[in-house]
Amino acid sequence: MRFIRCFDGLWANLGFEVVFVKVVIVTGTPGAGKTTVLNGAIEKLKDRYEIINYGDEMFRIASERKLVQHRDEMRKLSPEVQKDIQKLAAESIAERSKEISVIVDTHSTIKTPKGYLPGLPIWVIEKLNPDQIILVEADPDEIIIRRLKDATRERDAEYIKDVEEHQLINRATAMAYAIQTGATVKLIKNHDGKLEEAVEEMEEVLRD
Amino acid sequence: MRFIRCFDGLWANLGFEVVFVKVVIVTGTPGAGKTTVLNGAIEKLKDRYEIINYGDEMFRIASERKLVQHRDEMRKLSPEVQKDIQKLAAESIAERSKEISVIVDTHSTIKTPKGYLPGLPIWVIEKLNPDQIILVEADPDEIIIRRLKDATRERDAEYIKDVEEHQLINRATAMAYAIQTGATVKLIKNHDGKLEEAVEEMEEVLRD
Amino acid sequence: MRFIRCFDGLWANLGFEVVFVKVVIVTGTPGAGKTTVLNGAIEKLKDRYEIINYGDEMFRIASERKLVQHRDEMRKLSPEVQKDIQKLAAESIAERSKEISVIVDTHSTIKTPKGYLPGLPIWVIEKLNPDQIILVEADPDEIIIRRLKDATRERDAEYIKDVEEHQLINRATAMAYAIQTGATVKLIKNHDGKLEEAVEEMEEVLRD
Repeated sequence: MRFIRCFDGLWANLGFEVVFVKVVIVTGTPGAGKTTVLNGAIEKLKDRYEIINYGDEMFRIASERKLVQHRDEMRKLSPEVQKDIQKLAAESIAERSKEISVIVDTHSTIKTPKGYLPGLPIWVIEKLNPDQIILVEADPDEIIIRRLKDATRERDAEYIKDVEEHQLINRATAMAYAIQTGATVKLIKNHDGKLEEAVEEMEEVLRD
Repeated sequence: MRFIRCFDGLWANLGFEVVFVKVVIVTGTPGAGKTTVLNGAIEKLKDRYEIINYGDEMFRIASERKLVQHRDEMRKLSPEVQKDIQKLAAESIAERSKEISVIVDTHSTIKTPKGYLPGLPIWVIEKLNPDQIILVEADPDEIIIRRLKDATRERDAEYIKDVEEHQLINRATAMAYAIQTGATVKLIKNHDGKLEEAVEEMEEVLRD
Repeated sequence: MRFIRCFDGLWANLGFEVVFVKVVIVTGTPGAGKTTVLNGAIEKLKDRYEIINYGDEMFRIASERKLVQHRDEMRKLSPEVQKDIQKLAAESIAERSKEISVIVDTHSTIKTPKGYLPGLPIWVIEKLNPDQIILVEADPDEIIIRRLKDATRERDAEYIKDVEEHQLINRATAMAYAIQTGATVKLIKNHDGKLEEAVEEMEEVLRD
């Protein structure tokens, strides 16, 4: 059995058993419901995909190299070492994707006190070489309520603007990733009470 | 006679006959009126530019190589082959632009079921090396009515959001293209009843 | 004494005297108050940073090479020569940043008659290799009033849209810069009557 990374059936005509493998990046701002939608969508596609959390992969690599013992030590590593681990994680995922389609669970950007940090800088995106990027989104006010897990608190107008800004930044960043690899960028809205629609939409994008 | 790709008259002082040649990318979401504005603007500049439709150029190349007979067979080609044809089209256009200024008629992103597909991924934009990128835009509700060609249908709020999103994605993507080549990005609004203004604006950008 | 470009104290444990040096890009559309906020924030950090205006650096280099005598001659240089000077300026700043942290005062995009021009195209951003990018922003109507320096003129709705558009373009462009170097992108709002908050926020980002 051979796995060939391609999208269509041309090779099948040559008598190869073809399994189409691809790399999909799934992102979403906290509260958008990335994990819930992904778990729903993957149910019928379990055999097709392996889900790899990018942060977990980085921690695994750093632990193996005895650089850290606990996860919160990761960010104390020097930026050069962090960058090396980022690259190694990307390489390891790219290697895995030769055998099975991979969903990389990560962030388009991470909001830090120093500003928005791109989750997939050029040295990562080039190695991962994704075929598809998915952004799970929701309305800012929905996201805020979900984060609070307490629907009683007033929906703060300033806070809504912040979430709106972050989602906008995530989109712009995703397009800059996409032109590096030719990946498609799918925005999936996960609105309150419409989880099933979001799940179906993601299933549709993940299927072949 | 020599053609030199530059913007100003420095070489003219050295006794060369100088024709300033450049590559301009013109994009616009369906219904924005890209072709109408372009046709209007090119009237007075016909001798200066050759307009090349990027999709046509790809089809021409694929046909010559006997890969396809009809246009709708293009998307059935394997992604690797498609990528090769994309590159060949970019090279052919770049070659042509050594002799005459070229307007490339294409899309910033294409909306597909799998998501927004960048029209000019890195391996294309680097070869085309555009001097200018133009986005023809209109208000989402104007675009929807134009697409419907039937002003009676209600302007659907959800649909308006979709068009707004696509235009926003197109802008972000255009800026990511621009930093790869240093191109300017001009947004030209083609509002209902103001075609002449849009045409004049494009003429102004295309002139010299 | 050795200067090492890094963010944390790992090297200090090895007995080196460590000075953390970094490159910060500070941008802002005219009227956002970039210079005011920067001057306020730098007060307490004067020994840590050298501020270099990118345009000044380019002019210095062109003057030294006898290419121009006055600043307004810069834009008359051929694009190839301009590009070379841009690169030399970036190299000179990168060289300086080995000795002291540098703040580069420049623009995310410049609005020209031909469209938005990226201030830091790929050949510049790769050389500068910034650690942080800061965008000073304000509400479009605040910016317009500041530009007019005359609060009596009516706030023009069309003009507000233009400023909004430019700031949005600046953000998208900044994220495309960021993925090239892994820099963080901080949006700092400099609202009317809240200069102190903006100054504090920038101080916070520049500190350590």
